[in-house]
Amino acid sequence: MAKIFCYDEVPVIQTKAGKIKGYKYDGVYIFKGIAYAKAKRFQMPEPVDAWEGVKETASYGFVCPLLTQETPSAELLVPHRYWPQDENCQNLNIWTNSLEKGAKKPVMVWLHGGGYTAGSAIEQEAYDGFSMCDNGDVVVVTVNHRLNILGFLDLSPFGEKYRNSGNAGLADLVAALKWIQENITEFGGDPDNVTLFGQSGGGMKVTGLMQIPEADGLFHKGIIMSGVSDGKLLPMLSGDGREIVTAMLNQLSIPESEIERLEMLPYYELAQAYNKVCMSVAQKGAYIGGMPIVNDYYKGEPLITGFRNHAATIPLMVGSVFGEFAFAPASFNKQELTKTQTEEIIKSQFGEHTEKVRELFAKAYPEKHPVDVLALDRIFRLPSKELVKLHAKEKKAPAYLYEFTLEFPYQNGKVAWHCSDIPFIFHNTHRVEISNIPGISDELEKQIFEAAMQFARTGNPNHDGLPQWQPVTPEEAPTMIFDRKCEVRHNFDDELLKILEEILPPFNLAAMIQDMQH
Amino acid sequence: MAKIFCYDEVPVIQTKAGKIKGYKYDGVYIFKGIAYAKAKRFQMPEPVDAWEGVKETASYGFVCPLLTQETPSAELLVPHRYWPQDENCQNLNIWTNSLEKGAKKPVMVWLHGGGYTAGSAIEQEAYDGFSMCDNGDVVVVTVNHRLNILGFLDLSPFGEKYRNSGNAGLADLVAALKWIQENITEFGGDPDNVTLFGQSGGGMKVTGLMQIPEADGLFHKGIIMSGVSDGKLLPMLSGDGREIVTAMLNQLSIPESEIERLEMLPYYELAQAYNKVCMSVAQKGAYIGGMPIVNDYYKGEPLITGFRNHAATIPLMVGSVFGEFAFAPASFNKQELTKTQTEEIIKSQFGEHTEKVRELFAKAYPEKHPVDVLALDRIFRLPSKELVKLHAKEKKAPAYLYEFTLEFPYQNGKVAWHCSDIPFIFHNTHRVEISNIPGISDELEKQIFEAAMQFARTGNPNHDGLPQWQPVTPEEAPTMIFDRKCEVRHNFDDELLKILEEILPPFNLAAMIQDMQH
Repeated sequence: MAKIFCYDEVPVIQTKAGKIKGYKYDGVYIFKGIAYAKAKRFQMPEPVDAWEGVKETASYGFVCPLLTQETPSAELLVPHRYWPQDENCQNLNIWTNSLEKGAKKPVMVWLHGGGYTAGSAIEQEAYDGFSMCDNGDVVVVTVNHRLNILGFLDLSPFGEKYRNSGNAGLADLVAALKWIQENITEFGGDPDNVTLFGQSGGGMKVTGLMQIPEADGLFHKGIIMSGVSDGKLLPMLSGDGREIVTAMLNQLSIPESEIERLEMLPYYELAQAYNKVCMSVAQKGAYIGGMPIVNDYYKGEPLITGFRNHAATIPLMVGSVFGEFAFAPASFNKQELTKTQTEEIIKSQFGEHTEKVRELFAKAYPEKHPVDVLALDRIFRLPSKELVKLHAKEKKAPAYLYEFTLEFPYQNGKVAWHCSDIPFIFHNTHRVEISNIPGISDELEKQIFEAAMQFARTGNPNHDGLPQWQPVTPEEAPTMIFDRKCEVRHNFDDELLKILEEILPPFNLAAMIQDMQH
Repeated sequence: MAKIFCYDEVPVIQTKAGKIKGYKYDGVYIFKGIAYAKAKRFQMPEPVDAWEGVKETASYGFVCPLLTQETPSAELLVPHRYWPQDENCQNLNIWTNSLEKGAKKPVMVWLHGGGYTAGSAIEQEAYDGFSMCDNGDVVVVTVNHRLNILGFLDLSPFGEKYRNSGNAGLADLVAALKWIQENITEFGGDPDNVTLFGQSGGGMKVTGLMQIPEADGLFHKGIIMSGVSDGKLLPMLSGDGREIVTAMLNQLSIPESEIERLEMLPYYELAQAYNKVCMSVAQKGAYIGGMPIVNDYYKGEPLITGFRNHAATIPLMVGSVFGEFAFAPASFNKQELTKTQTEEIIKSQFGEHTEKVRELFAKAYPEKHPVDVLALDRIFRLPSKELVKLHAKEKKAPAYLYEFTLEFPYQNGKVAWHCSDIPFIFHNTHRVEISNIPGISDELEKQIFEAAMQFARTGNPNHDGLPQWQPVTPEEAPTMIFDRKCEVRHNFDDELLKILEEILPPFNLAAMIQDMQH
């Protein structure tokens, strides 16, 4: 059945820099590709130039160029939406069901994943903001910003104007949050109730922004999904950009005195030069960019440098998923394993510890198949627990911990993978085919979505559709298990993860990615 | 409400080259990114190498690289779906509701638009094949192939292996049609009932394939939407590729004796070299590629070189839309014009002919606003009429002519633009926001969609939901008007278009595109 599409009747919106016009579809006003800042390459963002007349904002804007060509794969697990790339990518999208200045609806700001080097505001089908706005009565904002060498390459040794080039991508996000403060009232949003939410790299950006004094007061709550890093996933590198940038200059036959030519070079050539030299620089252990750099602007990962005072006042909802990087299909069909086969598979991994691991896993996840322990995540779950406990120690704001453990009807029961929770929090399971599990997914979507909405409204995710969910204390991190049956578990996996850490080799992201591509 | 997603239960399909596995969603089996050929750059496609084991075909494959970076704009009019680009792009997608070999369902093969230089099988949201398969009980196939300098650059003067490089993109399509002949039975399709349908460049590809002897018997019907060229839109250029390729070699400092280096050059560098030299070569009137070249493989546009005997046996459904390239917003709101203002606007364009033009336009389109004559298409409507009459003269197969004249609720009533009919033929108006007109679009979608389905089933688009639609005769081209009220009109615009041709300056695509970007 046809929905109602309106354009001519939709009022023009006056933003600080000029007038814009979006459209309305099925009750939701939609604005796409609003420029929130402009920036010269490697330099800090500035406000956009004011314009005359009305700009139509109905097309998504450029996304940040990546370092290499992407190869579509595993689209069933994570359906993508690619888009034209250009470094003039400081733009955002808004979904709202009211244009009343007094409406004061909670504002949800999505920070996309892809580390600090990839992804975009619209990279996944699940990132569409329509359904969250429509079902949650909130204003949804999704943001593009500079990534990789455009957003995170330190050129500070080469000139004052590059002082913060190592954090330019985060500075873009701060500019976006300032734009929201100045303009979101016109879109029915409450500038005093802004919740950041992000997954993977997007979760890291939430903590990143908590550790930037300039962003204080620009947002009020944070949801971190599979995005707490303790330095194992993306190790913090030491040093400044002298070595990598010098190597790029040499590769390009540009003398250091002409460093500014890097600003004008076509991005393709810049990226090629970086790609050619970065491995050899990395092998020396030197900084190669692609992550924020600790300086007077950005104060570092809380798990390494501690929470800033203001950061500790931000209520948090933090979690991870059961399988995370276990993308690769299993070599067996777990539904058909005999007891003996199950035993052998587990034994091949855990040897003499098999009995102990089996017992601890069955205690932690009684409803899971014993072989699922092979796919269990540690890389996000462990630091997530650490982070919320550290936050709780400050006793300034609550933190809530969850784990998404749903099994999907794929490859004989696939455990939840990195990104598989995103359609649920966005209320977008209808946009992601594999998220459709009749009799299960609608209910779970409602439970997760409502928790996020309640958290955005009040700082507390509890709602009638869930069992009581206690905040974290310095001693203990009660975990809401999001699954066919939602329930809170206490101290259920500490011992299990401890023994896995002792037995298993350290996590190797590169190897995982290679596995995944087979 | 959650739909049913299946994977493990979906049978593996044996294609000639190897086993593949797709998935099933809401009753439709979906296969994405099946490789139907491989090719060396500038050379003819070859069958893909056979493989062991089962390949998952659940991710769209690469689309052909374009010559320049795209800039998203006017997404409300034509919502896009961009995708990673690579010249290894010989892949196709299939939607079917049966995997029974005896099902013998009509096969619909979509050839995308974008001239011969741009676009992809999934470029527009409206190209998704799910809904056509689901509602029409047909097998839908959408195809990627080589474009621009990869698909249409004649290097024949430089070596025998490049003999047909000027038509490599069409040769890819022939390879896709051969793949369909050999494999579509496994997907429930009838290899003896294959209908090509395409819009704009995709329509040109339909006639292109009709004029290739090697494609005879690989398809049986054709639907050409806004895609009949008489050489005004994309003029046929004379000569071979010696001049343009020599200019590229000079630009790249590659001696002619090392022509093969062009095969290995990164595509970005090849495209840059072409972009730098093509204007000056074009200004001399020499061939610059980007279109098929007439040779022993491809016999030329029917309106210029005549229909081949076999081509005339292909039943056709041909049409265009009211406004086509009238993308630019009007400078006035036609709903609010006084009689005098209306008169002045028309007069500013037609001067002394105003009265005559008004009268003829009112006769041809009695339900339209008088100023709509300023947006009326000639560039596709005139050659479409010519083509179907020429086809009718052969008296070997029927042809049916239509015009899509719907006005949309945008910019105070926008006349149908190029591509605005695509969501209707695909039964995808729910995927394209602007196509939603309550009380109107569902019914019209049904009428257009059913006409296409009936044509695919029987070669005759008539169905109960439409008035009687007569085929074209050598003398007359009855036109089905697809609009709020569908009706057949006879000889209604011949005189009008004749006078417009006399008065108005020749159509200028470049100027139109420039207009559009304002």
